[in-house]
Amino acid sequence: MIRKGRLFTPGPTQLLPAAQLAMAAATMHHRTGEFRALYTKVLADLKVFIGTRNDVVMFTASGTGAMEAAVSNLTSPGDKVLVLSAGKFGERWEGLAKSYGCVVETVRSPYGGTVTPQQVRQALKPEHRVLYMQATESSTGVRHDVEGIARLLKNSDTLLIVDAITGLGTTHFDVDGWGIDVIIGGSQKAVMIPPGLAYCAVSSRAWQRMESARNPRYYFDLRKENKNGAKGESSYTPSTALVAALAAAFDYVREQGGGDLAAGRELLVNNAETAAAMTRAAVQALGLRLFSASSPGAALTAVASPDGMDSSDIVKAFRNQFGAVIANGQGEMKGKLFRIAHLGYYDYLDTIAAIGALEQVLAELGRRLEFGAGLRAAQEAYAAAAKESEPATVGS
Amino acid sequence: MIRKGRLFTPGPTQLLPAAQLAMAAATMHHRTGEFRALYTKVLADLKVFIGTRNDVVMFTASGTGAMEAAVSNLTSPGDKVLVLSAGKFGERWEGLAKSYGCVVETVRSPYGGTVTPQQVRQALKPEHRVLYMQATESSTGVRHDVEGIARLLKNSDTLLIVDAITGLGTTHFDVDGWGIDVIIGGSQKAVMIPPGLAYCAVSSRAWQRMESARNPRYYFDLRKENKNGAKGESSYTPSTALVAALAAAFDYVREQGGGDLAAGRELLVNNAETAAAMTRAAVQALGLRLFSASSPGAALTAVASPDGMDSSDIVKAFRNQFGAVIANGQGEMKGKLFRIAHLGYYDYLDTIAAIGALEQVLAELGRRLEFGAGLRAAQEAYAAAAKESEPATVGS
Repeated sequence: MIRKGRLFTPGPTQLLPAAQLAMAAATMHHRTGEFRALYTKVLADLKVFIGTRNDVVMFTASGTGAMEAAVSNLTSPGDKVLVLSAGKFGERWEGLAKSYGCVVETVRSPYGGTVTPQQVRQALKPEHRVLYMQATESSTGVRHDVEGIARLLKNSDTLLIVDAITGLGTTHFDVDGWGIDVIIGGSQKAVMIPPGLAYCAVSSRAWQRMESARNPRYYFDLRKENKNGAKGESSYTPSTALVAALAAAFDYVREQGGGDLAAGRELLVNNAETAAAMTRAAVQALGLRLFSASSPGAALTAVASPDGMDSSDIVKAFRNQFGAVIANGQGEMKGKLFRIAHLGYYDYLDTIAAIGALEQVLAELGRRLEFGAGLRAAQEAYAAAAKESEPATVGS
Repeated sequence: MIRKGRLFTPGPTQLLPAAQLAMAAATMHHRTGEFRALYTKVLADLKVFIGTRNDVVMFTASGTGAMEAAVSNLTSPGDKVLVLSAGKFGERWEGLAKSYGCVVETVRSPYGGTVTPQQVRQALKPEHRVLYMQATESSTGVRHDVEGIARLLKNSDTLLIVDAITGLGTTHFDVDGWGIDVIIGGSQKAVMIPPGLAYCAVSSRAWQRMESARNPRYYFDLRKENKNGAKGESSYTPSTALVAALAAAFDYVREQGGGDLAAGRELLVNNAETAAAMTRAAVQALGLRLFSASSPGAALTAVASPDGMDSSDIVKAFRNQFGAVIANGQGEMKGKLFRIAHLGYYDYLDTIAAIGALEQVLAELGRRLEFGAGLRAAQEAYAAAAKESEPATVGS
């Protein structure tokens, strides 16, 4: 059969066509009233999408750029910081903090596990200036208990920094209520546009800390960027095409929410939750094992490669036979697990399609399975979720 | 869950993204060397796609425009013509021929049936100047036996005109070998671009007939258009954006065929055949009845609405719940059948997705069914087709 190019990967994700067209059409100069109006609108929409009253700052960079900003702007050499790590992106916090001369203590869980509030309670000390964590660890698919961990920090001087690059749009957050000091997102995830924009919301506590933080920063200077953002400007030449795409993406999310962006954001999270529930049910019905059974997130489902099968072969067959890209394990996990993402522009039909292709691929690679077993489980999970949460739209 | 806009209708069909971008980018003037080169390339590709050495002529019009050309350019008032009709598009031939003063005789089969060579043999008379037929009747999904009917006309003076608007890219033709005098296609079908271009291949017998045909024609003048086409020109202002899109679509089909457009065309037909086999297997496994069991085409599957269920409700639920458009019955068939198209840019994953959604919709409308039953049958049909016709690409 013919092959379409599809991305079932946890970033980049499938692109919203309206955003692609907005990107193609964008010919604005960035120092014009037209662009300032667009930039101002996108920053306002970002606040709603993140769900915060804090200031939102955007950089032309991949998500790691905003992670670096959350280190370089908030620490001084010699500062003690606590990092929670249960995978590749936790390790990135360690690397970043060390690069800026921080004294890093790490609460570590094995790949596939989460870091629990209990572990954090034991490790946390008053001298930890900052706690760095992921909302969801994209390398293994787990979701950490941000709310539980935030509660431990409520009356301390430790800032809470959450990498929610994969978490925004796949996880419910109460950013201000929980007291997240910096929450970080990126464009190539649930907001359905290509990589190249990073953004974060910054609390008043974090702004105060910046005044005494002595690490060097220039391109990723949060205070400078925030000051310019208030005027609809970016400090340096921004990715105008991606800003236009992001505006179009928020228009789509708003329209899906019946004209309300916050409602659209909740729908998007529920969408990922339902797709994840369908996918988990499917792979378990096929006799496969979830890589992270304890606390799976909604951004992706990580599946342990069946005995005797290299996940690289599954990933390769998906691509060769169906043109669809799923993700292999990263680093030492390569060959041992595969990851099907379901964040952003990924609907019921995509979920069913990916599971159907998975069954076909596994069968051709020699696994004995009953065709349709995973699909049936997914459909039942959808029907259960629809009964629970959505008013029937049929016939309306 | 969120809803994407998907077209599972027999025209317009799903758009190729590369063609959409080519369309958006097209800013050429049509009386330039740049456009002449593009137009010449597209006409040459059309010859390969249609599979003919005959001249190919293109109009900026919907497919009906080229049907009209095949009447106005080839007949004179009072000419006797034979029309084969088994649905809405057969009736269109009758209407067109009558409008141009032809004396129309019709070989008719009921909606859902085909017109057989035996029927044609009995009705055909030497005085029939032209025979008009469909390759596939989009209103019911059937495929007529073009080859068998062409054989009856081989040594007669009756021209054979085939509306293959839905047939091209979903059906194997030997245009020159069978002796099809005019074969007609349109852009909104298997070639994956929006409506607005019609084209046809014209035999030397048909060119000769035109010299004595006295019906009026101006915009749809085949000889004028062919003369200009040879110079890379269209007689009137062409839809430049759609021509650019068509060029991109042929590039995609060529690439799918490993650099060979004819091989890509065959793959596209096989793709539709496999999607159709999967869909037919699925609906039958769900206990539904194919509307046209005798000779179903690959462009679409027409399914009789289950007892007590109005197909309008099925179509509506598909759209409301999943944002996907399937087609209702047309005219008197409205409410009695629904049609799922699988031509053009529609792959394995789309097929599975549409069947999954169908199961979900039927279940919510109250039909008792086992989730996954149709999907399993589709997967088995795919596996059987893959075993038969395609070298395994897994691991290659």
